[in-house]
Amino acid sequence: MATTDQIASRRKLSPKISNQWLRQILSLLYRLRSLSRIEIVETTGLNAASASHALRYLLGCGLLLRSADRCGLTGRHREAFTLNAEAGYFVALDLEGDRLRFGLTNLLGDIRCRWEECLGLGQPFATEKVVEGIGRVTRDLDPTQLGRVLAVGVSYPGLLDAEGRLSAVNLGWTKVPLLAALRQAFPWPVFLERDKETCIHAENWLGAAQDCRNALFLIAEGGIGMGILEGGKHLLGARGFSGEIGHCKFVPGSEDLCNCGQKGCLEAIASSPNIVRQYAERTGAASAELRFAGVLERARGGDAIALAVLERAGRAIGSALSTAIGLLDPEIVILGGDLILAEDIMLPIVWDQIRLLTRPRSLEVVRIVVSRMGLDIRLKGAASLAFRNMLEAPELVQRLCAPARDAAPKLDRRLGRARRRRDRS
Amino acid sequence: MATTDQIASRRKLSPKISNQWLRQILSLLYRLRSLSRIEIVETTGLNAASASHALRYLLGCGLLLRSADRCGLTGRHREAFTLNAEAGYFVALDLEGDRLRFGLTNLLGDIRCRWEECLGLGQPFATEKVVEGIGRVTRDLDPTQLGRVLAVGVSYPGLLDAEGRLSAVNLGWTKVPLLAALRQAFPWPVFLERDKETCIHAENWLGAAQDCRNALFLIAEGGIGMGILEGGKHLLGARGFSGEIGHCKFVPGSEDLCNCGQKGCLEAIASSPNIVRQYAERTGAASAELRFAGVLERARGGDAIALAVLERAGRAIGSALSTAIGLLDPEIVILGGDLILAEDIMLPIVWDQIRLLTRPRSLEVVRIVVSRMGLDIRLKGAASLAFRNMLEAPELVQRLCAPARDAAPKLDRRLGRARRRRDRS
Repeated sequence: MATTDQIASRRKLSPKISNQWLRQILSLLYRLRSLSRIEIVETTGLNAASASHALRYLLGCGLLLRSADRCGLTGRHREAFTLNAEAGYFVALDLEGDRLRFGLTNLLGDIRCRWEECLGLGQPFATEKVVEGIGRVTRDLDPTQLGRVLAVGVSYPGLLDAEGRLSAVNLGWTKVPLLAALRQAFPWPVFLERDKETCIHAENWLGAAQDCRNALFLIAEGGIGMGILEGGKHLLGARGFSGEIGHCKFVPGSEDLCNCGQKGCLEAIASSPNIVRQYAERTGAASAELRFAGVLERARGGDAIALAVLERAGRAIGSALSTAIGLLDPEIVILGGDLILAEDIMLPIVWDQIRLLTRPRSLEVVRIVVSRMGLDIRLKGAASLAFRNMLEAPELVQRLCAPARDAAPKLDRRLGRARRRRDRS
Repeated sequence: MATTDQIASRRKLSPKISNQWLRQILSLLYRLRSLSRIEIVETTGLNAASASHALRYLLGCGLLLRSADRCGLTGRHREAFTLNAEAGYFVALDLEGDRLRFGLTNLLGDIRCRWEECLGLGQPFATEKVVEGIGRVTRDLDPTQLGRVLAVGVSYPGLLDAEGRLSAVNLGWTKVPLLAALRQAFPWPVFLERDKETCIHAENWLGAAQDCRNALFLIAEGGIGMGILEGGKHLLGARGFSGEIGHCKFVPGSEDLCNCGQKGCLEAIASSPNIVRQYAERTGAASAELRFAGVLERARGGDAIALAVLERAGRAIGSALSTAIGLLDPEIVILGGDLILAEDIMLPIVWDQIRLLTRPRSLEVVRIVVSRMGLDIRLKGAASLAFRNMLEAPELVQRLCAPARDAAPKLDRRLGRARRRRDRS
């Protein structure tokens, strides 16, 4: 018989230990989606009893679902656990620049509701717009669903200071008090991350880098930046300024003037506005009317100047990637932003330049692909940010388990009855 | 009164928990050298009682020393704990290339005994030489000291395969069965690491990067490579091929042929043999008789061709570092290898090129210095490798505490007496 003290100490310990177990299992399911009991035991290193205990608890909370897949080869049923997609929601924000995107996602990153707000480029960015947008994607939730909104994830361009104020020189934003406004308006925890990092995490969660621990995401549109995943975590640098490849020089002697004031930056040669600028300069076309897509169309139509400008940009990007591959040894390089539109023309040039410059050994395993996640990539990355942070913090895991927790005592009672029955027989 | 069960469970738990405590305290002292009790409590997050318990145990093992420093401002004594330098030894190996270095270091990385063995370049590398060298640096130890040798750390150039066989194309080594030979000859655990990583860890432990979590180490001698420290850990890449900056291209159109078969690699322009080659090509001097130091001497004497060759190399290195800084946002960049000899001539050129190419924001905090750790850097890095690995593995922490453990029960007995006396009074 256990003494009262022993029972008390068990009660005291149990939530603490099982919180760790819950985090381990939920983190696994965040990454791998569907797992059998044996896989969970093997990967977490939990013993079978602890894993069963935690799985029962999570099923009881309504956070997990159990399915019996028919196994391909043997035809036998295989018990599998997955996240219950609708057991929790995240508010995701993508402060893209000339527009603000809002999404409400479930635990699998599916976007359940969305809203967009156009910002004229250079227009002041008022925090009310953000608060209003979040209101819009959450207003149709019933009280139960609203209780399941767990956190807000924000993908931002530019720089965030220690007080959570956002500045982005390109966009004309100066010390926008974003964090304070969100904390004041909503009860949920708020997490913020640079857009480079949200992109690479979105690809790692749901895209081309799902099985990778080391990946690069090059985004080229208004600016150029790189998100770096190393050993499953993003690389930030000493001050969070890593991935500034857009301001590195790969075309010596280039006179192209960059927004940053320097000459010859990659961004000044290969960002979309600079591709348009070069085309306009060489042809005398009015650059105000031209768009990146227009230059692409002309190149597809055989326009030699458009092709030359895109070739120059592609070679500069290839040179940058060759250096990044040599330095960081990734498994995969994913190209995003406007490069997605230009895949047919620019990817062969980028690849050719990389092959020309890179030691064959460094290219043995690396894949270079274009992102297939579309315009929602940063919204999904922001949801992943919220999810990752929830899994890091014990109190947030408790919140994650909270919505359906009322069901748990019932489960315990049922289990208690079953046990008593077993003891009697 | 505690029940027998409770005492038994405490006994069972204690070694497991305290092992974690020991690791935390030893890891702190590995990094920070000297700490007060309060600093240990604050940094480890242990409660005061656990910290005191663990400190008492480590003092009892003879692994720690307690000193009473006089505090500068108040003149009061401040209790400080440091590692007992001679409580353990590491065997350190530096397979530099044309010579093999052997060292026996204490827990603070001081080299207590050393041995060197010249290898003619391209000469086959027999594992017997390594076994013999380790024998030489350990043969004068008395049995007690020999019992305190904890592990072997090896810094290697080239590539190690999964079976622990070493290949280095430049050096003519092919699948040398290094790990197997060491394991067969000695009873100690063996750890191996690429020389790039041992260098950056040596600087992080004992050199210019002691307070840094993000640092780069560029080594330029026979080849060029980069060790990358990110968040206190080294960055390896997907296959351990990171830091291959020597084979990246920063001088487009360069016709310099590299060992790897490509043209224009940084290594083909700025490694020491290639600096000598370029000088010889331009002057018609016999390159077999020239050394890197000779080119340096001529440059110092005003030789315009020597200066031009060194300027070209320095600018290529500066371009490489500019990109690495933009991509990785380090706090410090340390230059090593033959760059140390060339500090007076090349560092100003490297700096000038970096300033020319790098966005000012990326340079706000970064320092660029030449390594001051001398020829022993890789030996000390190899010792740090052994130490770091000991701290990772519970069973090795036990080994670390083992040599003087016989003293521990005595201490416990003394404490028991003191406690009984206190209880009586």
